Amino acid sequence: MHEPSAANRYRTLDLAAVPALLAGLGAVRERLGGRPADWRIREVGDGNLNLVFLVDGPSGSVCVKQALPYVRAAGPSWPMSLERAFFENAYYQAVGPYVGRRIPAIYHYDPDLYCTIMERLSPHIILRQGLIAGNVYPDLAEHMGEYVARACFFTSDLSQGCERKMSGVALFAGNQALTRISIDLIFSDPYLASERNRHTSPHLDALVHELRRDADLKIAVARFGRKFLTQAEALLHGDLHSGSVMVADGDTRVIDPEFALYGPIGFDLGAFFGNLLLNAYAQPGHATAADDRRSQQAWVLGQARRFWLTFRARFLDLWREHGAEGYPGTLFAEAADQARIEAAREDYLRGVFADMLGFAACKMIRRILGFAHVLDFDAIEDAARRADCEAHALEFARRLLKDPGEFASIDAVIDAVSRTA
Amino acid sequence: MHEPSAANRYRTLDLAAVPALLAGLGAVRERLGGRPADWRIREVGDGNLNLVFLVDGPSGSVCVKQALPYVRAAGPSWPMSLERAFFENAYYQAVGPYVGRRIPAIYHYDPDLYCTIMERLSPHIILRQGLIAGNVYPDLAEHMGEYVARACFFTSDLSQGCERKMSGVALFAGNQALTRISIDLIFSDPYLASERNRHTSPHLDALVHELRRDADLKIAVARFGRKFLTQAEALLHGDLHSGSVMVADGDTRVIDPEFALYGPIGFDLGAFFGNLLLNAYAQPGHATAADDRRSQQAWVLGQARRFWLTFRARFLDLWREHGAEGYPGTLFAEAADQARIEAAREDYLRGVFADMLGFAACKMIRRILGFAHVLDFDAIEDAARRADCEAHALEFARRLLKDPGEFASIDAVIDAVSRTA
Repeated sequence: MHEPSAANRYRTLDLAAVPALLAGLGAVRERLGGRPADWRIREVGDGNLNLVFLVDGPSGSVCVKQALPYVRAAGPSWPMSLERAFFENAYYQAVGPYVGRRIPAIYHYDPDLYCTIMERLSPHIILRQGLIAGNVYPDLAEHMGEYVARACFFTSDLSQGCERKMSGVALFAGNQALTRISIDLIFSDPYLASERNRHTSPHLDALVHELRRDADLKIAVARFGRKFLTQAEALLHGDLHSGSVMVADGDTRVIDPEFALYGPIGFDLGAFFGNLLLNAYAQPGHATAADDRRSQQAWVLGQARRFWLTFRARFLDLWREHGAEGYPGTLFAEAADQARIEAAREDYLRGVFADMLGFAACKMIRRILGFAHVLDFDAIEDAARRADCEAHALEFARRLLKDPGEFASIDAVIDAVSRTA
Repeated sequence: MHEPSAANRYRTLDLAAVPALLAGLGAVRERLGGRPADWRIREVGDGNLNLVFLVDGPSGSVCVKQALPYVRAAGPSWPMSLERAFFENAYYQAVGPYVGRRIPAIYHYDPDLYCTIMERLSPHIILRQGLIAGNVYPDLAEHMGEYVARACFFTSDLSQGCERKMSGVALFAGNQALTRISIDLIFSDPYLASERNRHTSPHLDALVHELRRDADLKIAVARFGRKFLTQAEALLHGDLHSGSVMVADGDTRVIDPEFALYGPIGFDLGAFFGNLLLNAYAQPGHATAADDRRSQQAWVLGQARRFWLTFRARFLDLWREHGAEGYPGTLFAEAADQARIEAAREDYLRGVFADMLGFAACKMIRRILGFAHVLDFDAIEDAARRADCEAHALEFARRLLKDPGEFASIDAVIDAVSRTA
């Protein structure tokens, strides 16, 4: 499928190796300008899995991202397939034609070094940090709603023949190491007394104990875990939380698609939506005497609402315009058919909405009880105050999973969060 | 994935080439006994896509099945991927450990000739012919219900980790040529005025015209078509009608899995169930003065009922015993959890049941309006009588698709067929 040309050419890059690598790539060298000695290089990786170098030259800059063979946060004792860099690049190539400037430009992929050389985004920051800081990004929801609509629609059965999609499914079914991580960390570990877990203790101990004994909750989570593995609707980013989005004034970019796989569209939607809700629940923890964060919280919830509404409107538009494989005109030629097809499309989107809420809830819970937490809560220093925010988020996620019938519309969801956050 | 060692070694086998091929395979030669000159060879392929040779030697016999590069019924003008022989063999290998004697023993697969040498089933006949002849096979429903339960359960996410299933998904996602045939011939062509279609005319003209303008029906069919392509629950046979089953006294074998792919379990169930219903609807067409075929029809419907009930019971048993990936004991350790898990499993099977009915209906319709018909109806010489049987089957399939709420239990389905067949 993707045999490296020399399996043992892999080596971990460092500040000396990066310029040597880039010097050999004519287009990259030209983009940076000057000579390698003129380039300024910094390692800035703050994620769990990769080295990230920013390289500035006299004329321009690039970003170099290399996969490490272990989970960085855990060290070499937790090995991790390098192939994820291959799948990240494959995802960018697959959605690139449809999503325009919402992803960074990719300049080069080195299959031996599992290393991508791409556009350096500047002055962008990670969305999660911007939201915690109380920043406002007026186009965020529309950019992201349109992004998911386009990336998912154009890789789904609604827009392409089965052959192309099956080839994509075959390719990304190789991304097993990272899918295993999702399965374990989202759908299983948070409900076990696993060594990898942590939570704000002792404040949340009783609630965590209760959640881990809630069979109906765990059955709902297991159902979404199965859906994640079986419902191959579209190519997904696979980890579309607010740490996988970079923002600057008027610009929004999606990064880090190494968990890419074919799955339910609601999984990507739920990752982004759920992380906005986590941020909304965390806002009271960041309140100061000067700013109670109520207006920031209302803005974040407004973005969550617009994210769904934008996705929904764009996805329907794309389906109407390009959905030859959805309800082909050859089969539905009568004028009277159109209203029925429209109703069928709305019905499909009701299912996607329910999936979004279920996956959002799974992801909210795992970020409070599981291995990888979010800075939205972790940055709240006072543990009692943090636990209070986390408890409200957990209780709401539990309602989403156990009483989905309560949440038939986006307004019902946003209202409920507003009342409990 | 599966590169033939010499792509141009392929040649169509004939009565002279078969013994030369088998003589080179020690174990097969030994099984047949004697010398090649002693072997009796007949070509008996009556399907659409393959050459089938039966070879009898002094000590034993084998069956040789070779894929042709075109649709046999249509001739060389309709080319067809030879790779289907590879997928047929891969399916046999994948389910072999779980289904015991329900498939023929495979002696050899030749990847260059796209040719499988397997157990010759004797005195077995094709089930469809047996049912038309009015034969009774007391174990049929139990054999087939258990077969689908085991083949699907052990290749699903309920019994195995995501890695193994994803590898299977990647492999069978290559079976694109035959998946394209299913998509076109089941979910699209029957609802179009396609050249490949035929129906009993003029008797059914008005009904066919009506069905092809029934938007709600076509939307329901499109929904099942999408489900077929997205819901990768288990490895499917992919064409499990009564022509893909061979029967003899007390024995039942599943053959011809060249359409194998990962998909919804209800697709395999629906193929078999729907073809039993077609046979039930055809029975009045085979009535004679001496035999009104009512008892045969009742027996066939009883088998359809028992097929579902056996599948359901066996699948639940397997899930309880081997479903470590379904509801793992680590997550559900409390005694009180068991009743809830049991309810969740029943809920899962309600979904599989609804899928079975929907896919059965799609397959019933395509066998009356589409390209490939069934002998159950075709053998009724009087066109008016045949059209009468076919119309009842069509109307029932339409109800299954448009009013699924009517059919919440297997008894509701069987009763409705009994009243209309």
